[in-house]
Amino acid sequence: MAKSVEIGYIGMGIMGSAMAGRLVEAGFRVTIWNRSAGKCEALVAKGAKVADTPKAVIDRCDITFACTSDPASARAVVFGESGVLAGMRGGKKFVDMSTVDEETAKEIGVAVTAKGAQFLEAPVSGSKGPALQGQLVILAAGDKPLCDEAKPYFDVMGKRTFFLGEVGNGARMKLVVNMMMGINIAALSEGLAVGTQSGLQGTDILEVLKEGALNCPMISLKGPAMLEQRYDTAFPLKHQQKDVNLALSLGNQLGQPMPVAAAANETLKAAKAAGYGDDDMCKVYEVVKVRKVE
Amino acid sequence: MAKSVEIGYIGMGIMGSAMAGRLVEAGFRVTIWNRSAGKCEALVAKGAKVADTPKAVIDRCDITFACTSDPASARAVVFGESGVLAGMRGGKKFVDMSTVDEETAKEIGVAVTAKGAQFLEAPVSGSKGPALQGQLVILAAGDKPLCDEAKPYFDVMGKRTFFLGEVGNGARMKLVVNMMMGINIAALSEGLAVGTQSGLQGTDILEVLKEGALNCPMISLKGPAMLEQRYDTAFPLKHQQKDVNLALSLGNQLGQPMPVAAAANETLKAAKAAGYGDDDMCKVYEVVKVRKVE
Amino acid sequence: MAKSVEIGYIGMGIMGSAMAGRLVEAGFRVTIWNRSAGKCEALVAKGAKVADTPKAVIDRCDITFACTSDPASARAVVFGESGVLAGMRGGKKFVDMSTVDEETAKEIGVAVTAKGAQFLEAPVSGSKGPALQGQLVILAAGDKPLCDEAKPYFDVMGKRTFFLGEVGNGARMKLVVNMMMGINIAALSEGLAVGTQSGLQGTDILEVLKEGALNCPMISLKGPAMLEQRYDTAFPLKHQQKDVNLALSLGNQLGQPMPVAAAANETLKAAKAAGYGDDDMCKVYEVVKVRKVE
Amino acid sequence: MAKSVEIGYIGMGIMGSAMAGRLVEAGFRVTIWNRSAGKCEALVAKGAKVADTPKAVIDRCDITFACTSDPASARAVVFGESGVLAGMRGGKKFVDMSTVDEETAKEIGVAVTAKGAQFLEAPVSGSKGPALQGQLVILAAGDKPLCDEAKPYFDVMGKRTFFLGEVGNGARMKLVVNMMMGINIAALSEGLAVGTQSGLQGTDILEVLKEGALNCPMISLKGPAMLEQRYDTAFPLKHQQKDVNLALSLGNQLGQPMPVAAAANETLKAAKAAGYGDDDMCKVYEVVKVRKVE
Repeated sequence: MAKSVEIGYIGMGIMGSAMAGRLVEAGFRVTIWNRSAGKCEALVAKGAKVADTPKAVIDRCDITFACTSDPASARAVVFGESGVLAGMRGGKKFVDMSTVDEETAKEIGVAVTAKGAQFLEAPVSGSKGPALQGQLVILAAGDKPLCDEAKPYFDVMGKRTFFLGEVGNGARMKLVVNMMMGINIAALSEGLAVGTQSGLQGTDILEVLKEGALNCPMISLKGPAMLEQRYDTAFPLKHQQKDVNLALSLGNQLGQPMPVAAAANETLKAAKAAGYGDDDMCKVYEVVKVRKVE
Repeated sequence: MAKSVEIGYIGMGIMGSAMAGRLVEAGFRVTIWNRSAGKCEALVAKGAKVADTPKAVIDRCDITFACTSDPASARAVVFGESGVLAGMRGGKKFVDMSTVDEETAKEIGVAVTAKGAQFLEAPVSGSKGPALQGQLVILAAGDKPLCDEAKPYFDVMGKRTFFLGEVGNGARMKLVVNMMMGINIAALSEGLAVGTQSGLQGTDILEVLKEGALNCPMISLKGPAMLEQRYDTAFPLKHQQKDVNLALSLGNQLGQPMPVAAAANETLKAAKAAGYGDDDMCKVYEVVKVRKVE
Repeated sequence: MAKSVEIGYIGMGIMGSAMAGRLVEAGFRVTIWNRSAGKCEALVAKGAKVADTPKAVIDRCDITFACTSDPASARAVVFGESGVLAGMRGGKKFVDMSTVDEETAKEIGVAVTAKGAQFLEAPVSGSKGPALQGQLVILAAGDKPLCDEAKPYFDVMGKRTFFLGEVGNGARMKLVVNMMMGINIAALSEGLAVGTQSGLQGTDILEVLKEGALNCPMISLKGPAMLEQRYDTAFPLKHQQKDVNLALSLGNQLGQPMPVAAAANETLKAAKAAGYGDDDMCKVYEVVKVRKVE
Repeated sequence: MAKSVEIGYIGMGIMGSAMAGRLVEAGFRVTIWNRSAGKCEALVAKGAKVADTPKAVIDRCDITFACTSDPASARAVVFGESGVLAGMRGGKKFVDMSTVDEETAKEIGVAVTAKGAQFLEAPVSGSKGPALQGQLVILAAGDKPLCDEAKPYFDVMGKRTFFLGEVGNGARMKLVVNMMMGINIAALSEGLAVGTQSGLQGTDILEVLKEGALNCPMISLKGPAMLEQRYDTAFPLKHQQKDVNLALSLGNQLGQPMPVAAAANETLKAAKAAGYGDDDMCKVYEVVKVRKVE
């Protein structure tokens, strides 16, 4: 693994700084950039260099990663003045790890490759903890040779990398998985609601689930929080609902009926309407469980 | 653990013979009975004794377990001529491990305790493999002291025992868990359907799920089977649908809306109507995925 | 039309007294009975005779109608002491116009015909007003010759009589129609909710509906009540929900998926859980429309 | 009613020519235009004048109506070369009767009023027959004085005119009504399916519905067609599904859950996936009714 390669990382938010930090600690030569320069200091202290603009990162580096907070900032970093695109040319490599919609990923991909450069979309599954521990799951799509070349860096950032084919597939994979998550949290809510109303202990239900075929981290993590009404936001309910809705739109385009996802979407919408949009997605439980009227 | 205690086991089907077999192998003194006596031979070879009727088992034993195939056979063994009830009296203990509905469990419980005996409903979660390996999950409810007393035997048969309160709660817990299973298999079907139609590889979807918060034995086991259209029956689809429907009935009695379970139920009904009732429950995937008409 | 025929009518509730009253006013010779005799007085004043028991009505009359309030009272009147069944024999004719479930209709039918008598189930569609005006719709099933013979009397009580085949079909027809009613009231609720939230006037929506392909008495009647939050009970919400649920059970037995009815059922259950069970079924609107949280 | 007023009508499709024809027959002075001039001949024979471009119609007329086939053609007629917009100025009046989405209506409205002219969106409810007979329902929104001024012409084209407020409300009203239509056709499908499977005659179900609170033109028209499997296209299923989907999107924006519409949408999607998109919307019945597998 040639440590003489110059690596760029754009975006020093919670996720980006964690991923770039692991690259620095692994001994790679890393140049970083962030809109507000202050967020670069911690990594500079560990040996990272700083560039003045995204374009300057691209100019200096062989391969540049980016992780911004949403589609708008992803576009700004790429298409803005002195942005990524301004530095793109044959031989340059750009890997966008931001979570964006399929259209944004495709537009960035088309713009980058039109300049003769290589592009990879690579959103991740996992949050702050896994990012710090290099335990992310990387959903790469686009330029296969670039994916292979980026493997050593992905291995430092994540526990597993998937190459999913053409650009857009990374975004779609996130939708499919998040849609299933939305159904599952609604299912857990209905199970806990009917179970506790029928006289079972909520904790017993969770323990029995833990011993069976449905045992998964989501239930272990969210189940107790729901019973204790702890709804600190790990993944905001409004984003969970948005993703289920987008997956339904994808199904609508493809002619694929998804009645169970549609039912879960309506329940999530009811929770958003109840004012829980910024709380954790598992607060959907609060609209599912019935408060008996005497 | 007093190995001089006389233990009875009624019902030598796949599950019952596996559980009784573990008790014999653990060195307990076990008396067995089965409607067709031939099924008793294997255990007799290992040291079990045989009684002529359920009543005879009860008469000889301090504590008797039973595991029959359905509510009708559970009732027959208890209420039939020379049945369990005929032998019940103060000091006798009966643990019914059959999977029955709440009403059957309650009727048997009422009849047994009316004779001055102790009763425990104890359906299990897990199939043949876990039964042979003593890895079942035991969902006990009813007489708490009897549950404590039966603990050494449950520990030989299962990996974990829950005491869930009053008789009926064991049956209800199975319903709640199976209802969630029904939603989850429908969710997996919709996820695989929309994902593969959108250009993703089914195996990639399963692998990504495996790395994330929804990773559970059900997905690991059923997912590949669905993609390969292997639908050998582990749990028949018609039973899966029946349980979701019963859970909805429970919700109906309690006034608990369950719209996601209701949607999953309709999908499972469509699969049953398509003739898949006797196939594995995961064949629901075949009615979810759309065959595009050109 | 032989006015010398002796006609019986059992059950002087709101519906029964209205129907029997029309028969008396039409000049027929009518003998009535009611559990509490006081309710017979008004008709006696108009010329009806009173008998002491249901059996006494049967004994005196050629053809006897009944309309009781629910399955339990229908059974009591037939199977109770000095009940309808006690008087049944060859040549007697019994027409049960009570709204009962299919099983009750069939049990009464079997018992009556086993005595050599003729039986017709004939639940009605329509409430007090149509009953007083002879505008009911009569859903008859069972003995076809008896249906033909009863035609003159049905014509006095209703505007239209259907003969639907074997006993049970009358009850089933009511379920199918009421299930569609349940879906329609939920659809109207969703339409008014999303429409008014999007800035349309509720009264405009109702007027536009009135001019179009969905124009029906239900919308004309319930729509304005919903907008004005007038929920005086014409048909209790809990009965509406029960009927949708029974129709789903019928579908479940027949293997017929009904996902839209299932979704409507959950919404009706939510309304019942909110404490609206005894209000008019159109109060489901109150749980459908979202109260925005600011 | 000043018959000296010059009236324009743009778009001589089935609907436009019928409406313009009624204006001509009523004695108004009408100038027409159509992309393919041949379609103007019939009306010219009755006394209409023809202009060369939409702009020429506007230039010559005080008030101009338009009815084109879809949003794209509505935009082309307004924004294209020598289009409506090119002629707009203070004192001109434009009434767009095309069925378009809310965004298209708003964009046209903004562009027209920016020129100092008056604008009314006025989609209609009703098809060819009602158009020829002047029995349309007109859903006007935008400039109230223009709506009043147009009243004499609307009265010739329709049986009833609604003024619904700001531009966009006309489009939204059509969505709300069509969404309810989508639910109702699914409800009728489920009712006929479960009813006929339970042994009832489909024609009996329709007749009973006709006598009750759900009696509406949609059931009278579509019901018999469904039983006889006649699916000649009056309103294409794919458009019906699209409208339900758009109404759900509207609900999604507004935070209004619509679980019954969501379930109906999935059923309509299944029908579209089955290849019925271009058939009449009532062909959804074919995917609802189960073909029993023996």
